[in-house]
Parts: sequence; structure tokens; C-alpha cells
Amino acid sequence: MARMEYRNLGKSGLKVSEIALGGWVTFGHSVNDQQMVRDIVLKAHESGINFFDQADVYARGKSEEMMGAVLRELPRSELVISSKVFWPMSDDVNDRGLSRKHVLESIDKSLQRLGTDYLDIYFAHRYDPSVPMEEIVMAFDHVVRTGRAMYWGTSMWPAARIAEAVEFARSHGLYGPVTEQPEYSMLRRERVEGEILPYTESAGVGLVVWSPLAMGMLTGKYDEGMPEGSRLTDNENWGKNFVTEENRARVKALKPIADELGITRSQLALAWALRQSGVSSVIMGATKVQQVEDNVAASGVKLDAEVVSRIDEILK
Amino acid sequence: MARMEYRNLGKSGLKVSEIALGGWVTFGHSVNDQQMVRDIVLKAHESGINFFDQADVYARGKSEEMMGAVLRELPRSELVISSKVFWPMSDDVNDRGLSRKHVLESIDKSLQRLGTDYLDIYFAHRYDPSVPMEEIVMAFDHVVRTGRAMYWGTSMWPAARIAEAVEFARSHGLYGPVTEQPEYSMLRRERVEGEILPYTESAGVGLVVWSPLAMGMLTGKYDEGMPEGSRLTDNENWGKNFVTEENRARVKALKPIADELGITRSQLALAWALRQSGVSSVIMGATKVQQVEDNVAASGVKLDAEVVSRIDEILK
Amino acid sequence: MARMEYRNLGKSGLKVSEIALGGWVTFGHSVNDQQMVRDIVLKAHESGINFFDQADVYARGKSEEMMGAVLRELPRSELVISSKVFWPMSDDVNDRGLSRKHVLESIDKSLQRLGTDYLDIYFAHRYDPSVPMEEIVMAFDHVVRTGRAMYWGTSMWPAARIAEAVEFARSHGLYGPVTEQPEYSMLRRERVEGEILPYTESAGVGLVVWSPLAMGMLTGKYDEGMPEGSRLTDNENWGKNFVTEENRARVKALKPIADELGITRSQLALAWALRQSGVSSVIMGATKVQQVEDNVAASGVKLDAEVVSRIDEILK
Amino acid sequence: MARMEYRNLGKSGLKVSEIALGGWVTFGHSVNDQQMVRDIVLKAHESGINFFDQADVYARGKSEEMMGAVLRELPRSELVISSKVFWPMSDDVNDRGLSRKHVLESIDKSLQRLGTDYLDIYFAHRYDPSVPMEEIVMAFDHVVRTGRAMYWGTSMWPAARIAEAVEFARSHGLYGPVTEQPEYSMLRRERVEGEILPYTESAGVGLVVWSPLAMGMLTGKYDEGMPEGSRLTDNENWGKNFVTEENRARVKALKPIADELGITRSQLALAWALRQSGVSSVIMGATKVQQVEDNVAASGVKLDAEVVSRIDEILK
Repeated sequence: MARMEYRNLGKSGLKVSEIALGGWVTFGHSVNDQQMVRDIVLKAHESGINFFDQADVYARGKSEEMMGAVLRELPRSELVISSKVFWPMSDDVNDRGLSRKHVLESIDKSLQRLGTDYLDIYFAHRYDPSVPMEEIVMAFDHVVRTGRAMYWGTSMWPAARIAEAVEFARSHGLYGPVTEQPEYSMLRRERVEGEILPYTESAGVGLVVWSPLAMGMLTGKYDEGMPEGSRLTDNENWGKNFVTEENRARVKALKPIADELGITRSQLALAWALRQSGVSSVIMGATKVQQVEDNVAASGVKLDAEVVSRIDEILK
Repeated sequence: MARMEYRNLGKSGLKVSEIALGGWVTFGHSVNDQQMVRDIVLKAHESGINFFDQADVYARGKSEEMMGAVLRELPRSELVISSKVFWPMSDDVNDRGLSRKHVLESIDKSLQRLGTDYLDIYFAHRYDPSVPMEEIVMAFDHVVRTGRAMYWGTSMWPAARIAEAVEFARSHGLYGPVTEQPEYSMLRRERVEGEILPYTESAGVGLVVWSPLAMGMLTGKYDEGMPEGSRLTDNENWGKNFVTEENRARVKALKPIADELGITRSQLALAWALRQSGVSSVIMGATKVQQVEDNVAASGVKLDAEVVSRIDEILK
Repeated sequence: MARMEYRNLGKSGLKVSEIALGGWVTFGHSVNDQQMVRDIVLKAHESGINFFDQADVYARGKSEEMMGAVLRELPRSELVISSKVFWPMSDDVNDRGLSRKHVLESIDKSLQRLGTDYLDIYFAHRYDPSVPMEEIVMAFDHVVRTGRAMYWGTSMWPAARIAEAVEFARSHGLYGPVTEQPEYSMLRRERVEGEILPYTESAGVGLVVWSPLAMGMLTGKYDEGMPEGSRLTDNENWGKNFVTEENRARVKALKPIADELGITRSQLALAWALRQSGVSSVIMGATKVQQVEDNVAASGVKLDAEVVSRIDEILK
Repeated sequence: MARMEYRNLGKSGLKVSEIALGGWVTFGHSVNDQQMVRDIVLKAHESGINFFDQADVYARGKSEEMMGAVLRELPRSELVISSKVFWPMSDDVNDRGLSRKHVLESIDKSLQRLGTDYLDIYFAHRYDPSVPMEEIVMAFDHVVRTGRAMYWGTSMWPAARIAEAVEFARSHGLYGPVTEQPEYSMLRRERVEGEILPYTESAGVGLVVWSPLAMGMLTGKYDEGMPEGSRLTDNENWGKNFVTEENRARVKALKPIADELGITRSQLALAWALRQSGVSSVIMGATKVQQVEDNVAASGVKLDAEVVSRIDEILK
């Protein structure tokens, strides 16, 4: 097994593993056994993964709790722990969005659930048009100045809003966002490549991408259609519309390329996302220890121009 | 019963219920039974009120204590708790006004009485011409930076002073006021409409208004004159001069309009204040649970242009 | 007895009593009985004095301890407690001056000795030319931002250096000095009137003056020369050179004026210093309760132009 | 024995002894006996040394622990304690460099090992080109603002990067570096004299220099070649290449000069480094109490122009 490689998170000094472990739609959902979470997290750590991505809203806090219980066993400084704020955690009208009140109250709850004194990265999980940019940036700056997080980032923000936050922070001497967390995969590449990367890469804002396997579609496990009880069926919003005839054909066409390289299609998909120098890390979920072992092997796999070009043909 | 509606406090990200419950001239005055305070506060919370307005000076701290004892039972993040500083709490020469010393000492005392770690909004209860604007804004900025309040606001300030505070804060990278708390009702509208709103609405400063029922005058309970032992008789400064022949005639003339709309005159008066998009919330006091139930129903009542015009005629 | 009057400390919002009680050359020196200190301090408080002035160096910390032990019995917010830093407290090379190290270490020691969480005013006891203005102002700004003092001031600084500190703070968004503490009395007026006041008054920097009685000379007790064992004999630097033939003549000549006004020469001397609107408070020391009673009566005494002019003649 | 002399650290207000005691390549290496460390540190303190220089990486934390255990016995304000961050303390990818994460996590570990609440100076042990200057300066500024260090400095940085840090801090109102710690000795003078001092001296940045005795070479103990088991043999990188024929000849030629002045060649070498007004302190290591006694005597030795010129001839 190749050793994990690390990249700076954008131009920041923080080093993140090329493969990150996320708690989305797994811990607290399909994985409810704490022992299984422990096995997965420890395997990830042992495999060189240092970046563990969470959000308050993943399984309504349960994912933070389950992952946090294991992370607490590990040396804190070796870990890059992130969480997020934006989505409602209850019906309460202030328990959502990016108001100063919600940002500051939420991070304290996340820290509590994770069992740590500080996050490495705190993400604004979506852009909130109902809050002035000034209030958002000053709230996240306050998070950094009070030691509750080392850095902060955005997730799924329009490039223009990331730029606005970066510039507002810079011109006011505040801590600005150092990374964006967009969705990015072979089957959903337009927004990142067309809008986000052209700004973030030149601005030194890192990208950590979620769903690089397109909800598992790129693993090849839906080559023959969607099986009963798969993770995909539980996630209507993102998952199901990946499983189209067209995508199945594409994913099947990727197999010969993966075979030639002696890697799996999962590894090919992760390595493909990481071919972008503007991408710092790709976040995988895992429901089995084996998936961690398989996916970490994608770190360090370099795709040459010819392979990338053949993949472009297939994805067209 | 209609569900409570919420508005952003000015352009800030904080959401406040259209109807707020205040502790002025009720708790610690006419309502001295803690069980009654509890019933009123819990009914308010249950009715969707999230904004609870206090001041150090209300019943000399007793109102904060009585309301705080109940608020402590509720989830902190669901509450928007405010208090205020300016009026003397004792004969001491520094126990008043907006000096840095008084602002910082007072908020700690209010937090103590309320039993909470932070306020959502801390109000400068009046403008203090004896303190430089720089000292005032830096003291309230310090309150926000040290986590003692999420936001701060002004109360009964001249528009020019609010503007000065907003600009001083903006140009120095400090936290500025996000709201003003003026008196505003059908029977006292000139200052808000002529001086305050034209500035605050365009500047994104919210308004939360006190005495929207003109000390009860607009409920109709003084249609036949002032009864013995009413709340009004205890508050010479504001109350008594509302009870004039002219005002009685006006309030009576509002009844047919309320009847047509199938609401009470109280609800009409609250809805009338809330017709202003620049008003974020109206603060009511309550001495009975029933008043809460009656008044919250004003939230969401929309007055059309013709009704507003008829009311203007009556109030002329 | 007239009630104590209060003035704003310069343009700041802090109100200080016209007469302050200082711990210099009394507590820990001539007054070593804690019960006596208690009697004096409580009498001062009861007489309306709210301003208690200390320095680390007064009796090498003992004055802070003795006064602090009494102040702790009183409500903290009613007190304006000051201390100072600059003079060596030991032979250690960093235990002096205005380096960041010394300022921050010293205030914590003063707070400890005084038994309070914060000072109201922290004075830089002298200007320190060996430390850059930037370091001095940022250290005192840090004192204010960390809540260890409400305000800070200078003592015995050249006007140009006060101006430099005020401007550096203002232009960098830092907390600047709000007051200067110079020596000022009928027998030593040139520096304050010629250099300090012309700047401080227009800049809104307050003055609290020490030795307004010229080390007791102005009380008249040296009319017949210096008695054995007087306080003056212990303080060569300031005291002795006041006791000259010329000064004795002046002080005797003031007696008829005081008599006409029905006040003592001490009261006249204090009222004379307070005739300056740019002076916020005069600091007296006391070794007896009676001195407190006598001196506080100077507050509120107004000297008319003719009296001031006659005094000017005498002091020429 | 002459008394220790002290210099301001650059233009800062901090006073450091001309001779400092460092823990590099001694404590935890050749000196593993805590009692010996104690004797050396107490002798240093007794001899007027107030500056104790450490780094996390010296003996992987053991040097901090051993020295800290003794420093804890001494009055904290009399000590100038420094430590450093940059070099890896483990294989972990974030356990190195100047990222915000590493700087903030490392200082807390150093404080823990040293057993103190704050450092006087925290050094960036090398420049880290993989971290933006903005992140570095803001992290060290944060260290100062949160009270974890009084000042910060650089070590072995290019002059251009020191200048960049100073200017970034100054123009953003942040705490900038007040000192650089370069290597400087008779046998390695080019970089300091050619590149560093011309900038630092005019900018008011102090220099504290390490290896002023060229790893012991300048003591004369290698006049006859390198003995077995000497400290030098353990430190290939810096040490060995000092022991050349040419250098041995130079060091021997210095002996008559030292003899004429009635001092040892060690004292001559230290005094020679201190002849630069832009050098604030020279750091010595010690494995024996006697070395401390010998070296502190170099403080205050002034070399006249003729001696300096003769030394220049020898060093050519």
C-alpha cells in the first residue's frame, strides 16, 4: 500500500490528507454500531487519513458524537477535525443559517458533541443571503479569535460570495475563509470546473470535495441498476438521479481504464478529482473498514494527460 | 390561532418574533407572583414568542430576576434575551449612563440576575451626551467581543446619534448597533415616522417598539375614562397624558375597523405598528396569561392600504 | 457639610469625586495601623469620595494591600480604583519601566494586592523613553481589552508624549490614555499651567493632580518652620524644598483670604486647584480621619475672579 | 567578577542579559542529570543571567522540561523565557512548520513542559515558505493577544522575510517580531554582518545570537584537533566543519589578544559578538557550572577599535 500523501489546504499552512473521512450519511444512519465507527475511524487514522469531516446536521448530531468518541482516543494535534453550521437542527427559527447568534451557539454544541476544545476548520455549510456578509465574516472571525477554530471555510457557496468574504476579511484585517467544500465528481463537474476553481485556485482558497464517488455510483456497484436497501435509496436528493442509463454506461466505460492502471474505479474516481492541484482533499464516507483500505490507495495515484483525456471523452 | 411570524432584526441575521414580551411596569410591579410570571412567560414561549425584553431598571432588577428564573427552564438558543443600561440603579454617581465602567459593570449584573451567560441584545437605554461616542461604541463593541452579548442596540436615541454610532463602528471595524428601540404607537407616531424610520430602514437598523398599545389606551379599556387602580395610574410620565378626550374619541373610532377585520383593537394596534417593514417586533407587557394569547394573534395580520388610510384619518 | 461634587474624568464618561484619597506616603509609611487605614478609607467613602489612588510603589505594595483590604468591603462599582506602574519594585532589571512585560506582570500583582478583578484607571507612572510609544500604548490597550482596567492614564508625562500616545491610539483604533496625573499646587503651578493643561484640556484628557497641598506646606502647619517628625521630613525629594522663607510668607498671606471665605487654607488650596475646569480631581493623603473631613469640604467651593487674582498676586 | 550588563531587545522595552543560557545540545543530551541542570541554571540566575532560551525541539522537549523544572523555583517576572516552533516533533505532517494550527498547538505544549503560563519570547525557529506571511504573523499576533507570549521573534530568517513580517504587522496593527536569532560568531559572521544586521539594526529588531563560540571551537579546546567524545562530535551539521586547519590557526592566533586583555578566548569571542550594538544577547550552552562562571565574565568587556581590527586581520 502506498503511503498517504498530504496537501496544503489552499495556500494555508494546514496539511490535509488527500483522502478525508466524512461522517455524512453513514455514521448515525447506515452505521449505528459504535464499534464499527471505531474500527473505521481507527483504520482511517492508521492509513494516514488526518482529516475528519463532520457537520452538526449529519444524523442530527449523532455523527459528530459517534466519530468524536473515537477521535478523543487519538492525539488531538494529529487530527484535522471540521464541522459545519447552517442547516436547521430543530424547528426553532434561529436554529439555522449564519446569524452571529446561530454560528456562535452552534459551534459550542458541535465542540461539546465532538468532545474537543477546538475545530481545525469550521464551515459555513451554505451561503445565507438573509445575513449581511459583514455579520457572517465577523462571526467566523470571532470563532477563530476566541480559539474555537483554527480556520474557517465555506461549503457550496457561489464563487462570488467566497470572493466577497475573502475580500471583506482581507480589507478589514479579519480571518477569512481558507477553503470551500463543494460537491465534485466525474458525474458532477461543471460547477466546480466552470465557476469555483477558476476563482479559488488563483485566490489560494483550498477545495475539499464531497461525494467524489457520486454517492457510490462511480464504484460500479450500480452497473446493473440499483439494488434494494442500498445507501443510495435513502438519499433521494443527491443519489437517485445519478443512476441513469447514461451514467451507467459511462461508469462501465471507465472500467477498462481502471483495469489498465491496476486500480479500482473508486480509486480512479478519487485520483481523478485529486488531479486538480486546486483540490486539497476528497471526502469519502465508509460503512466498512474495507472501504477505507480500498479508497486510501487512491492517494498518490497520478493520472497522465492521455488517461485524463480518455476519461473526458467518456464523461462528455 | 395563527402561527407567530418572525422578522429579521433589521438587516441582521437574528430572527425575532413579531410580538415580544417585555418586563416593563409589569413583573416586579403589578405582577409580583413568580408563578404568574412563569405562566405568562411560558405561555409566551409556547405561543411562539422568542424575544424577551428586559432592562436593569425594570423594578430595579426584580423584573430581570423574575423573568430570568423562568427563561432558565427553556433552551437558551431558542430565546432572544435583551436587557438595557443607562438609568440609575442607585444613587451612585457612576451607576448610570453609558461610561465604559457602567456599561461593563452593568451587563455583568444583568447576566447575573437573568441567570444567563450572554444576552442576545444589549441596549443603550438612552443616548448619553456626557460620554464620547467613541467610548460608548467601544464599550458595546467590547461587550460583543467578550461574548457577553451577541448584538447591541440603542433605545430612544436621536436618529443622528444612531447614525453616528453606526458609522463610527463601521469605519473602525467595530460592532455597531443593529437595532433601535423607540416608543411607537397610533397615538405617538411622529418621532418614529418623521425622524427614526427614514434613517434606520435605509441603514438596515431594526426597530423594536415599546408601548405599541400606548400604555393600554389603545385596548379600549379607557373608553369610559380611567378606572381606579389601573396600571396607567402608576405611571404618570407616559401613561396619563394618553387619556384625553381626543384620544378616547380616536380609540372608539377604531372599534368599527377592528370589528370589520374580526380582531380586537389591541390586535389592530399591534398589526398597525407591524405594517412598517422597518419595524421588526412590537413589545407588549402582560399581567395575565390571557393578554398574551390575545396579543400574539396580531402577528401575521396584514392591513391593506384602505384600512391604513382610514386609520390615518382617525388619528389625524 | 456640603455634598461632594463629581466631575467627568476629562471627556471620558467616568465620574470622579473632586477630592480623591491617595495612599502615597501615608499608608504603610506614617500610617501602619490597619484599623486607622480602615477608618480613613471608610470616612472618605462616607464623605462621597469615590476615587482611591494607589501605585505599586507606594510603600512597596503595602499601601495597595492596606487600602485594598478596606475597599473590598465596599461595593466595587461605587469605587474608582487606580494604580500605577513604572518605578522599580525590586533590583530586577525588568521590574521597572513600561515594557510590555513589566506592565502586564505589574498590573496582575497590583490586582492581587488590592484584591480586585480590575482597576478603573491604570497609570503609566512616568514616561519611559527606553520603550517605543507603540509598545507602551499597545500594552495599556491590552490591559483594557483583557478587562484588567477600564481606562488608562499617564502620570508626569510631558505634554508632547501624552499627545503622541493619544494620537497613536486614535489612529490605530486602540484605547488611549484618558487622564494625566501631574503634580499641581499653588506652589508648583508652572508646568501644569504652561505645558500640560493647554494640551490636555483641548484634547479632553483629564487631570487628577497630586500634592495639591504642596506636601502639607499649604495647610499652614509650617508657618513657623518645620517641626520634628513631620511627614515632610521623610520625603526629601518633593517636600523639603517647599519649606522656604518665601513660601512661608506666601502661605501666611493666604490666611486672610481663607478667613474671609470662612474656609481653611487647605480647603482654599484644593478649591484653587479645582478652579481649573481641566482638573477633574485633586488627590489628598490623610493620616487622620479629621483630615478627610476637613478636606472634602473643599469640594464645591467656588473661587471668584477677584479671589483668584489676589491669590495670583501672592504667589508671584 | 563584573556585574552582568543588560540590553534592550532591539528597540523593545524588554531587557535581556548580555549573556543568555540556552538549552540546545546540552540539557537532555550531554547533561541528563537534573541536579546538574539545576546547578547550572541557578548559577546562571545568580550570575545575573535573566534570559533562558529554549525550543520545543531541543532534546525533543526534554530540555524544556529539565530547564523549566528549575525556572519554576525562581520569581517568574525576573526571567525572560523563550521557546521556539518550527522543527518536527514527530512524524505527523502538521507537527512542524508555522501553520496557525502548529504554532498554537505547539506553544501550549511548550508552556506545559516549561511549567509557565506565558513565554517572554516565542520564536519562529525557521522561515516557512509553505505558509503565507499573513498566516504566520496573525498566528504569532494571536499568541501575544491571548497572553501566551509577551513578544515574538524569528530565528534564522532571511532579512527580507523579517522585513516583510515587520511591515505586515505594522500596516495591519498586529504585533510584529521584535528580535531575530541568527547564528553568529567569529567563524561565521558573513550572513549576520552582510545581510541581517544592516536591516535589523535600523529597524529596531534585536539580535540574540546562537553558537557565538562556534560550537566550542573558539574556546581553544580544539587547538590540537578534535578529542574523542567531545560535544562537537555529536553535532555533525554545525560543529565538525568548524574544526579545520585554517580555523585552528585562527583560534590559536586569538590567544595572544585574549592574554593581553587578561581574558579567555571564550570571553573574547562573546565580547566580540557583543561589540555590535545591534546584538542584544549571546546565547551560551553549558555542561558545567564553571562554564557559566567563565562566560558571564564576558559581559561588559569592551573591545577597542584596535583590538577589533587585529581580530579582523586574523579572521580574514
